[in-house]
Amino acid sequence: MAVVTLLTDFGLDDTYVGQVKGAILSVAPNATLVDLTHAVQPQDVQAGAFLLWSAVEPFAAGTIHLAVVDPGVGSNRRGIALRSARGDAFVGPDNGLLLPAVERLGGYRAAVQLTERAYWRPSLPNDPSSTFHGRDIFGPVAGRLASDLPLEYLGQAIDDVQRPFSLPEPRGLSGEVLHVDTYGNLVTNLPAHVLPDLFQVRIGNHLIPPAAHYAAVEPATLLALVGSTGLLEIAARNTSAAAITGATRGTPVSVEPR
Amino acid sequence: MAVVTLLTDFGLDDTYVGQVKGAILSVAPNATLVDLTHAVQPQDVQAGAFLLWSAVEPFAAGTIHLAVVDPGVGSNRRGIALRSARGDAFVGPDNGLLLPAVERLGGYRAAVQLTERAYWRPSLPNDPSSTFHGRDIFGPVAGRLASDLPLEYLGQAIDDVQRPFSLPEPRGLSGEVLHVDTYGNLVTNLPAHVLPDLFQVRIGNHLIPPAAHYAAVEPATLLALVGSTGLLEIAARNTSAAAITGATRGTPVSVEPR
Amino acid sequence: MAVVTLLTDFGLDDTYVGQVKGAILSVAPNATLVDLTHAVQPQDVQAGAFLLWSAVEPFAAGTIHLAVVDPGVGSNRRGIALRSARGDAFVGPDNGLLLPAVERLGGYRAAVQLTERAYWRPSLPNDPSSTFHGRDIFGPVAGRLASDLPLEYLGQAIDDVQRPFSLPEPRGLSGEVLHVDTYGNLVTNLPAHVLPDLFQVRIGNHLIPPAAHYAAVEPATLLALVGSTGLLEIAARNTSAAAITGATRGTPVSVEPR
Repeated sequence: MAVVTLLTDFGLDDTYVGQVKGAILSVAPNATLVDLTHAVQPQDVQAGAFLLWSAVEPFAAGTIHLAVVDPGVGSNRRGIALRSARGDAFVGPDNGLLLPAVERLGGYRAAVQLTERAYWRPSLPNDPSSTFHGRDIFGPVAGRLASDLPLEYLGQAIDDVQRPFSLPEPRGLSGEVLHVDTYGNLVTNLPAHVLPDLFQVRIGNHLIPPAAHYAAVEPATLLALVGSTGLLEIAARNTSAAAITGATRGTPVSVEPR
Repeated sequence: MAVVTLLTDFGLDDTYVGQVKGAILSVAPNATLVDLTHAVQPQDVQAGAFLLWSAVEPFAAGTIHLAVVDPGVGSNRRGIALRSARGDAFVGPDNGLLLPAVERLGGYRAAVQLTERAYWRPSLPNDPSSTFHGRDIFGPVAGRLASDLPLEYLGQAIDDVQRPFSLPEPRGLSGEVLHVDTYGNLVTNLPAHVLPDLFQVRIGNHLIPPAAHYAAVEPATLLALVGSTGLLEIAARNTSAAAITGATRGTPVSVEPR
Repeated sequence: MAVVTLLTDFGLDDTYVGQVKGAILSVAPNATLVDLTHAVQPQDVQAGAFLLWSAVEPFAAGTIHLAVVDPGVGSNRRGIALRSARGDAFVGPDNGLLLPAVERLGGYRAAVQLTERAYWRPSLPNDPSSTFHGRDIFGPVAGRLASDLPLEYLGQAIDDVQRPFSLPEPRGLSGEVLHVDTYGNLVTNLPAHVLPDLFQVRIGNHLIPPAAHYAAVEPATLLALVGSTGLLEIAARNTSAAAITGATRGTPVSVEPR
């Protein structure tokens, strides 16, 4: 049974996510649907790209990932579908949202622009809407992929997938906060492999020692560790490192060898 | 595999939604469950009715929609099940919540009061609870429908489904805001077919031109367009039209031909 | 098809819940996943234990419950799996989170420490992570149980499941607020069977009469009733009893016979 994941900035207060799921299940009634998150800040494509990147690795190869953070919906920005080296499919707008996740899975080996209207939602008077391609194009297309339609049927092959941004790269041991999570943990862009054997982490006025896990330090104490996605994180036991440090996305972080 | 959707005012902080799902899956282990939204404001039946109305169209005919916004739970208000002209089923309280959605799908061709206790949840000491018919009656009944029990088995036929309210209708080109969505878009009750070829939209002191899509105007600029449910919407590119205009549900909106 | 429920303090803003689901579905692609709640306050094991307790009864025997509120992740606290008398399985940290729910289903008849790494997630460089056992251990293990692996295969049998706390017990007719729900209803720890035929409920300065259901009193009036889990609740019609009374978790409540 095909797994289709969904990541959007639709929130959960409206029925937009439900409508996309209805459109998918209309085409692929046996699909298993999994929410990655719908709490991307509205129109924040880069935050959505990070969150999608964070989520895809644990899913089995062949999973279909539908992602919609799409301030350009209805304009001439393209809709695309990509097939990763590992065999996963990605569907969404051609605005940079999908690429970091695809590259985490080895890059793409096929890319198409979604041009075949036969695979879109047929029932609207002015079809598709200019505001809801998640329901009218991306959802139905994901449903087709879940029903084993070859990705190449969805439209014309392209070789110029847009890359309007990349996730920020560290320079040596200098990086920044990529994401503040629900606990107030600060996820940085510094990967585990750049860390010296002995180090401290500097953020603002704080100099923070590494620790093996959260409970290895006293409550409310800052610690640094390699988080679940392989990136350096700054956390605080049982409280929010963001609240203690005042750090937000983009705050500089540096690693100092000892 | 039957699809059962859920729309409630239960929120996601408690386990109420999970308990309803447990009750459904106990009866129909193969059902596919889809959340429409659980963020209806507590006891706001009319808001729930709009949200259910907004959601049902993309689902395949035959879908089962379970909706619970039910301030009268435990009183003598009835529980009902309706079969739409298109073949969908609706289950919930007889308080007006279901009707707009059913009518969007062509009205109902069968209606029953839920009186057959054999199809309710059997295991409570005082069965059912007076506070949680979602788990004890509506969920099990939806599970039976998902298992292909004929709707007529659920109770006695009725011809007096209650209509304590309707969604507000526009008067000509004068309408109001029906719903403020997560983005701050203002969904009005003015359908696309009443719009002149050339028009502007007035809300408060703002006179707003139509645009083909969000990205057709400058950032933070108000625009008017036909939204994804076929209703006139007032939006603002990459920001909240509600914040700019101060509009809320019920704020008057009018269309002015040019 | 096996049902796996999830209860965590991960929130819905990140992709952590999605990652756990990816890990489960990688092992058990046909599992049906149900969210109980992910809004447990971070690291609040006792609140998580109450919420899990509240949720499990409506699910069919044989359901697999995965729960993660785990401030000790990565330390020497154990991961465990329990089989309830009724046949349900529970997976999570050995910190008291699981026990109230298990005992609601008759206690456990088998308990193992999760020591068999062959059933964990294999793919990380430093396997498993020290911060995300939900994805790397508990999720894969739940997936194995959903695929009918005997619980005893997961690790060594133990007879010393930890009980660092119990849900607070009432003393006669004196109890306390266990949980404030989304509506502001106050769920107490006083079970229905201790209530006299005629009684009032005292909380702070309020003396509250029982009522059969919410709509039996005037709007905004306090009432007492037996809630959906069989516990005495204090509610207010169409508004929040918590707001009216100022009560929070732990506020004393007493029942006075009349």
